[in-house]
Amino acid sequence: MLARQGRDVRLWARRPEAAARMTAERENRDYLRGVSIPPTVQVTADLYRAVEGAETIVIAAIASFVRELAADVAPLVARDSLILHGTKGLEPVTWRRISVVLADTLGPLVSGRIAVLSGPNHAEEVARGLPTASVLACADDGVALRLQRLLGNPHFRVYTNRDVAGVELCSAAKNVIALACGIGDGLGYGDNSKAALITRALAELWRLVERHGGSFATVAGLAGVGDVIATCTSRHSRNRWAGERIGRGNDLGAVVASTPMVIEGIPATRGIVSLAREAGVDMPICEGVHRILFEGQRPEDTLRELMGREWTAEA
Amino acid sequence: MLARQGRDVRLWARRPEAAARMTAERENRDYLRGVSIPPTVQVTADLYRAVEGAETIVIAAIASFVRELAADVAPLVARDSLILHGTKGLEPVTWRRISVVLADTLGPLVSGRIAVLSGPNHAEEVARGLPTASVLACADDGVALRLQRLLGNPHFRVYTNRDVAGVELCSAAKNVIALACGIGDGLGYGDNSKAALITRALAELWRLVERHGGSFATVAGLAGVGDVIATCTSRHSRNRWAGERIGRGNDLGAVVASTPMVIEGIPATRGIVSLAREAGVDMPICEGVHRILFEGQRPEDTLRELMGREWTAEA
Repeated sequence: MLARQGRDVRLWARRPEAAARMTAERENRDYLRGVSIPPTVQVTADLYRAVEGAETIVIAAIASFVRELAADVAPLVARDSLILHGTKGLEPVTWRRISVVLADTLGPLVSGRIAVLSGPNHAEEVARGLPTASVLACADDGVALRLQRLLGNPHFRVYTNRDVAGVELCSAAKNVIALACGIGDGLGYGDNSKAALITRALAELWRLVERHGGSFATVAGLAGVGDVIATCTSRHSRNRWAGERIGRGNDLGAVVASTPMVIEGIPATRGIVSLAREAGVDMPICEGVHRILFEGQRPEDTLRELMGREWTAEA
Repeated sequence: MLARQGRDVRLWARRPEAAARMTAERENRDYLRGVSIPPTVQVTADLYRAVEGAETIVIAAIASFVRELAADVAPLVARDSLILHGTKGLEPVTWRRISVVLADTLGPLVSGRIAVLSGPNHAEEVARGLPTASVLACADDGVALRLQRLLGNPHFRVYTNRDVAGVELCSAAKNVIALACGIGDGLGYGDNSKAALITRALAELWRLVERHGGSFATVAGLAGVGDVIATCTSRHSRNRWAGERIGRGNDLGAVVASTPMVIEGIPATRGIVSLAREAGVDMPICEGVHRILFEGQRPEDTLRELMGREWTAEA
């Protein structure tokens, strides 16, 4: 998208064979088949060539690889480069947010220039130029405005937001909610159940975001409501799909083994539940997913417990 | 559902033939085929027999018929009857909320006992006992708690809320949002567009609800987010379906003429836009639907205008 907007783009691939294939084929056949990589994009496996002198460094690696990658990038960051990440999830085991991992690794001179991009942004649709809206969060308004101007175009509308913690927590939790919706689908529940599950899951996510100093508007915005809707109602979401298999009674290990794809919702469930317990926040739906995935509870029993909670007010 | 919970239920039908058919067939074949009406339910076309002495009067007529029906019910309301309505929409032309129409008609002695039930509650799924959550709004906490106890069961979870105006505005606006989503589907847009459209439509709905003294939590709750998700992603929603036909270039009159069903989103668009203009609230998505339905704008042009608005912050 940036290359089509006339920007000079360098694309880094970890494996030299992958970089060579993309250079030859002008396409990333494993992950975004059918979308041509513009001729002006240089694909390289040489991190120095990719990052050196870049005005903006975009990091969209999986959560477990961000710290290692950032450590390699750190010495190459120019004095005024902006760092934009699009990683959805929390760092495994430490359960830190990605911008915190980046700030840890890149150091205090860079940490003020770290931003996150999130929202309902299926890559296939962005690549086809279908109308898309995205949220860009950064504590520094000037950085946010520069990135909004860099990324935005008539098909890709970028909203700024200062609430980095809120956006990152929403991005991690949405895959837990997608697992929960998939489990409901596997149990044969209908549209009423799914809509209620999403709504109440957003209410408990809001309690966690609030505890981390985040804003209600973020949870009600593109990174929260928007991305949750896109993920939970999509036939393509692998988290929703994995939940459906589990809801039908399949074993977690068997579901994971049946696909080469990473089911991010599985570590995200550990992460979100860990943060909730640490902060003393009540998150019954995420706790329920945790019991199903890691404590051997049958989904029907989890549902009965959720529906049997004391009757209450909406907010 | 109430009859299955052991309540004494009387069901009123406007047309004597409809009452006779339901009594004979123990089923409402035109509107809820396949769901048997329990033998304890008395079906009648005699309003006096239906309402006289009732502890709770449930009104779920279409918005345009509520005032006339309430005028007939008014002399029959017992001193302490509760009034619960489930009508989604605004009264045509006056664009008053349904609880306001009921209070106007039933008078000041009754007005404190009027409540509204809303949320993602497809009747077919409630009838099949699939897990459902609902919101019950009433200014009087005691009334709300009585109705919560009356309605709730292990498959039907009722949340109370004091924000009657917010719940009613959400219920009317959700069919406008469903039309907008359908129009996007008709134009061939994808999951990103739909998720963004819903999220931004909820943001503008929040501005209207706030102006009417309502609460953010209502828009983020079952009547707002929940019902919008259920309506906009359902294949069964006739408002989404009508929008899709319009998005494909069909004429509004032809779409309306092609179905015997009422497309509530059409009057609701006039109503919501009328309230927004009166209150000076910016609702670009609802205004866009209004231009397409009533001002002859082509959907592609509406979309271009929406995407071309000045870039902004999320909230």
